Amino acid sequence: MPSTPSFNVSRNRQIDRRRFLASAVAGSTGLWLASPFARLAFGQDTADHRDLIFHQKDPLNGEPPLGVLPSEFVTPTKHFYIRNHGNIPDLDRQGHRLKIEGLVEASHDFSLQELSENFEKSDCVATMTCAGNRRREHNAFKPVSGVQWDAGAIGNATWGGIKLSDLLKHCRLKEGASHVWFEGADDVSTPSGMTHFGGSIPLDKAMTDHGQAPGALVAWEMNGQPLTPEHGRPLRTVVPGYIGARSVKWLSRIIVGDRPSPNHYVRSAYKLVTAESDLIKAEQNPIYRFPTNVAICEPAPEAMAANGSVTVRGYALPTGLPDARLREVEVSANGGRRWVKARLLDEHVPFCWSRWEANVPVTDRTTALLARAVDTVGGVTPDRVTWNTHGYLYNGWHHVPVKVAG
Amino acid sequence: MPSTPSFNVSRNRQIDRRRFLASAVAGSTGLWLASPFARLAFGQDTADHRDLIFHQKDPLNGEPPLGVLPSEFVTPTKHFYIRNHGNIPDLDRQGHRLKIEGLVEASHDFSLQELSENFEKSDCVATMTCAGNRRREHNAFKPVSGVQWDAGAIGNATWGGIKLSDLLKHCRLKEGASHVWFEGADDVSTPSGMTHFGGSIPLDKAMTDHGQAPGALVAWEMNGQPLTPEHGRPLRTVVPGYIGARSVKWLSRIIVGDRPSPNHYVRSAYKLVTAESDLIKAEQNPIYRFPTNVAICEPAPEAMAANGSVTVRGYALPTGLPDARLREVEVSANGGRRWVKARLLDEHVPFCWSRWEANVPVTDRTTALLARAVDTVGGVTPDRVTWNTHGYLYNGWHHVPVKVAG
Repeated sequence: MPSTPSFNVSRNRQIDRRRFLASAVAGSTGLWLASPFARLAFGQDTADHRDLIFHQKDPLNGEPPLGVLPSEFVTPTKHFYIRNHGNIPDLDRQGHRLKIEGLVEASHDFSLQELSENFEKSDCVATMTCAGNRRREHNAFKPVSGVQWDAGAIGNATWGGIKLSDLLKHCRLKEGASHVWFEGADDVSTPSGMTHFGGSIPLDKAMTDHGQAPGALVAWEMNGQPLTPEHGRPLRTVVPGYIGARSVKWLSRIIVGDRPSPNHYVRSAYKLVTAESDLIKAEQNPIYRFPTNVAICEPAPEAMAANGSVTVRGYALPTGLPDARLREVEVSANGGRRWVKARLLDEHVPFCWSRWEANVPVTDRTTALLARAVDTVGGVTPDRVTWNTHGYLYNGWHHVPVKVAG
Repeated sequence: MPSTPSFNVSRNRQIDRRRFLASAVAGSTGLWLASPFARLAFGQDTADHRDLIFHQKDPLNGEPPLGVLPSEFVTPTKHFYIRNHGNIPDLDRQGHRLKIEGLVEASHDFSLQELSENFEKSDCVATMTCAGNRRREHNAFKPVSGVQWDAGAIGNATWGGIKLSDLLKHCRLKEGASHVWFEGADDVSTPSGMTHFGGSIPLDKAMTDHGQAPGALVAWEMNGQPLTPEHGRPLRTVVPGYIGARSVKWLSRIIVGDRPSPNHYVRSAYKLVTAESDLIKAEQNPIYRFPTNVAICEPAPEAMAANGSVTVRGYALPTGLPDARLREVEVSANGGRRWVKARLLDEHVPFCWSRWEANVPVTDRTTALLARAVDTVGGVTPDRVTWNTHGYLYNGWHHVPVKVAG
């Protein structure tokens, strides 16, 4: 497969055979995920309808019930949210190749075997979060478009592969290189036609490794296993600290550019805008880093609690910077008048969440639990957040209604 | 003076005679502003030490006592904050020329007389706010650098001049034009040496006029008078809805570019960053639009109030978008448990603040007043905001400690 040193993002206007098959599987029958075929297609440690709540079938989008998230620091793959914009390509590990082109001295075209043999293996734990996590809370101001995520579009995994920095150094960057573009092998429909999903990150991010935490990883493993199809088999990027959209799946092409990628999901989507206006988009950078966040996972909304106290569990995430640590997570049972400090359950790992737990006094006047967090670089979860069209980056106080026995 | 169709931002490493004189005036004597000379230098309707609180003398930076701001919808020039990064050039109205170059069919070089004779005069009212307004509140998390502004680095003025869109249409834009750079005639010291203060705005903003509100104005009048020296005499830009830093004073050069200006105040400063890191800066766009904001101007901090109720006055500002209006301003006297709705005192004008007033019940347990606001595009003032190195865009609940007679 010859390398194509072109800056054009390739487009595919055909719905290919694989996509047709995926659509047929993910059809309109309510049994679609209960079939043995569905479980097979998703791999062994992967979610089916018993493990995730699916908001959409095509594209496939699902999140775990919140209650399972505090069980483990590293989220089992079957409980890891699945976020797709198009089809799930059925790619072959043997035949897959990764092209690297653009502002590099020589273009390359690697098989997975070549990647693993020529570069040092690297593993890291990093939390991935969809920019749309908690999207549905934005609706309190005005309805937002997109998958109506609750607070489960987040997960923490171990990722295995090679450092993007090593790969880029090997290819020798040219003058002017400043952004790294990623392109997947899926087919997505955008306002400007069919394309592949794409993302990009500043070159500085790609080249800035912090000990165990790489600036970015070109990964083929998740939780010690080869990537499952819906998590990007055979190859994806993982960008610790950045929104999930920058961790492009089914990675087929890396282009080193002198500006952010022109792909729809960089140029237009994944920006904080209040209207679909060229001007408002021009004012906004692509979203890269994720902000401080927090969620209550237990008790479930509308759960009954005994008068006295309730055990509250959840997760909190510091700002996506290597030196950001959680400083404080707090829970309130009376609308924010008094706050109870939660215990962090996990040791600090850069770019990772910590689970937390608090015993909170409640009375028969308690109607809801609130959670908030601050980190060591000044990140906060405010009481309310500014609304945006696509409902990105909701990180206000998490609010869970509860009932207390009288 | 020949037009120089160059993209280089001119630098001046010499401290020129004007700057020397300004420094001599703004010297170390405590009497410097009380002298008749100081008042003369500032023009007739301009602030002296009786009207503004000066945080710095060189560069000159001052804000009004908060209590004067609710007096009028249009802020008198003498109570309008003064924000400088370098000297205050002493420019001559007759001799001043404005160069326009870059991605235009023909470069131009206009006198003020040519601008006023060849283009339609335009007036608008617009609120200007320093991105550092309320900066000192960021210190509660960690000290921030820069002028320690209270909530007075904001003002509302009538501006007179011509629409930037008319000027740019006259010059006929070339293919690729996408940002408009402004350069002043002041001399500022930056980490990379002496330069002129500069700003830039997306071309779409420059070309998008909304009735009375231009995308941007090339202005020579403020509140019906020629600009005073410290507000940019003889010529400045005014960009409604954007932070004050984009409204460049002593405007001498407009360059149409294919990207944001490389000037220090676009490329590096005026970004929301948590550290002085190239990577973190690369993730951030220049700040353009201002967010929803609110402040209590009366009573003053630590004022005594009678048990019963207190009249609270202040200003609130919707997001800097033409269709954003204030939806609600609220005041709390008990830490945010109950909120009293304030009355807006001004009719809605796009890109302008409104003053507000509320009668708020207080008791001997009241220790502080809080204010918050929401607008119609989803802008909110949250309880807390994420910290940033330079303390920009503080817009959390405004908190004023008060004492109530027992």
